[in-house]
Amino acid sequence: MSHVVKKRKLDKTRQDRLYFDSYTDVTIHEEMIADHVRTNTYRMAILRNSESIRGKVVLDVGAGTGVLSIFCVQAGAKKVYAVEACSIAEQAVKIVQQNNMEDKIEVIRGTVETVDLPEKVEVIVSEWMGYALLHESMLNSVLYARDKWLNPGGIILPSKAELYIAPISDPVVEDRLHFWYTVKDQYGVDMSCMSDFATRCIMNSDITVNSVTVEDVLSHPARFAELDLHSVTVEELRSVKGKFRCESFGSAAVNAFCVYFTVTFPCPDKPLVLSTSPFKPETHWKQAVLYLDAPVDVVQDTVVTGEVRMYPSEESGRHICIHVDYTIGEQKRQSKTFSIPDWSSEAQP
Amino acid sequence: MSHVVKKRKLDKTRQDRLYFDSYTDVTIHEEMIADHVRTNTYRMAILRNSESIRGKVVLDVGAGTGVLSIFCVQAGAKKVYAVEACSIAEQAVKIVQQNNMEDKIEVIRGTVETVDLPEKVEVIVSEWMGYALLHESMLNSVLYARDKWLNPGGIILPSKAELYIAPISDPVVEDRLHFWYTVKDQYGVDMSCMSDFATRCIMNSDITVNSVTVEDVLSHPARFAELDLHSVTVEELRSVKGKFRCESFGSAAVNAFCVYFTVTFPCPDKPLVLSTSPFKPETHWKQAVLYLDAPVDVVQDTVVTGEVRMYPSEESGRHICIHVDYTIGEQKRQSKTFSIPDWSSEAQP
Repeated sequence: MSHVVKKRKLDKTRQDRLYFDSYTDVTIHEEMIADHVRTNTYRMAILRNSESIRGKVVLDVGAGTGVLSIFCVQAGAKKVYAVEACSIAEQAVKIVQQNNMEDKIEVIRGTVETVDLPEKVEVIVSEWMGYALLHESMLNSVLYARDKWLNPGGIILPSKAELYIAPISDPVVEDRLHFWYTVKDQYGVDMSCMSDFATRCIMNSDITVNSVTVEDVLSHPARFAELDLHSVTVEELRSVKGKFRCESFGSAAVNAFCVYFTVTFPCPDKPLVLSTSPFKPETHWKQAVLYLDAPVDVVQDTVVTGEVRMYPSEESGRHICIHVDYTIGEQKRQSKTFSIPDWSSEAQP
Repeated sequence: MSHVVKKRKLDKTRQDRLYFDSYTDVTIHEEMIADHVRTNTYRMAILRNSESIRGKVVLDVGAGTGVLSIFCVQAGAKKVYAVEACSIAEQAVKIVQQNNMEDKIEVIRGTVETVDLPEKVEVIVSEWMGYALLHESMLNSVLYARDKWLNPGGIILPSKAELYIAPISDPVVEDRLHFWYTVKDQYGVDMSCMSDFATRCIMNSDITVNSVTVEDVLSHPARFAELDLHSVTVEELRSVKGKFRCESFGSAAVNAFCVYFTVTFPCPDKPLVLSTSPFKPETHWKQAVLYLDAPVDVVQDTVVTGEVRMYPSEESGRHICIHVDYTIGEQKRQSKTFSIPDWSSEAQP
């Protein structure tokens, strides 16, 4: 039986405290380290960049348990500043010691906006991506670090982020809406009139974090935004937007859009991509699912066009909102704004 | 990435608002109706009591979608007052109409403490059970209704509740703690020192709602409390306690207790029991799991004794706390107090 916490405007300090508190539990760190796609892609990217890292000074923004800092030392870094605001920094100190790297890695407890480093750096590494890429707004901190601490010509790992969208047909929604028609056969009570209420509740304006199955994706995904981490500004992150155009693979009922991201690491041979696409192995980011108010039928080659805009919520700057304007086939243009619910918490298995 | 909402003392009105808001979403009602053990046991119990219900006036406390009220009409009730404080009452009105029972069922929006019924009743039916039986304290409302509206000699469905406890060995915890020893092989980073931190986080003082597997239960469960709904008082619910004694089936590491309940319906032939035991088919209540601070080894016939006390939390009267004093084998007596975390929300699949 679930408890809904009502939305309310939070002051900045409280927002930050809630945000940083959320990383004091082991679960999120376990989930991140156990996410093999995430951790291994970072590891490969750092090791393949050892030519750029060897003998250099590195800044790890939001270091968490310090695993990326350790990869950087393994790639030959002279010095790594592992900046972490949460109490998990205490664990990072222990892990650095256990790996005998206390002479190379300095764990600094604090936000990157307030800490003072003894020198500038040649490399910034950070795993800053949230749900739908920008939830939690940690990229702002990376850009702040870049502008303040990165030497000209320095590198950022990853260096590019891209956002994609595709129409999908989520069968779980269909099943859940159909459920109310099955109650009469089971218990002799007609509850089919609940279907309208269920539609309003389920196809709401929350950003739902879900694993989208390949078969449920109805077109090639369309890229609608690209961020170059060397040049993008905090100001530009206040509104990340772009147009999209998709063509349906076949006949289906579109009931949602799915939004996901990739980030790219420059590498000497060819770039390494960390993808959260539903066509790739699952990551802990899964995909962001945005339900329409009602399903819309499409056939093969039906064109779905529109524009996506992502921006920080007014109530809490760390929460992302996604506004989608869209036209499906001959339908008139529609729009819907989605946000991450306050109580978005990972299910504890 | 999970957000922790800090505990704070809530005023009574706010507590009630949060509580009643939590039932405005379709998900909880879908889960309850789809819980076949729950819904079908109530249905059978009501139909088998048709001799006591036929021609009588019934009060349904916290009627939700009104399904129990409809069962009562199917059992021959002359009139059912379906009292529901949440907006789901609007759906109950529609469902009653759809089943052509608007002359028999009167849906009344309000709390049972404040509504005014035109007459006393012969039967009270209610599905009031929360996690660990008493979470959400809805039984208080049933007792209030009993004292105010139930005629002498009237019946309450269900009429009895019993609480059980058993030591368990949760293998998921073992796996999660072991995970940190596997990181070195995977990524070349020794993170085994995280195991202590993980133990503190995972074996914390939250009441965890989990499905306990039969194989993980280490002894016959012990009943530690029984509530007779005809006689128990609100005052007595402020501290529900009892002693227990279990004997271990075999060698294992106890890392938790599991607490669950049954409720019993009187029936003309033999009583009908709705059980949430791990030995019975799963219900949406699952079991309440209480983790010890550290695992304790037991062998066959090791005696586990103790006392459980359940009481409403000081911060929020609707939240339950469970205090367990226990002795495992030759170990010295220990105690730990558990509570349901504020953000306890059902995982949305």
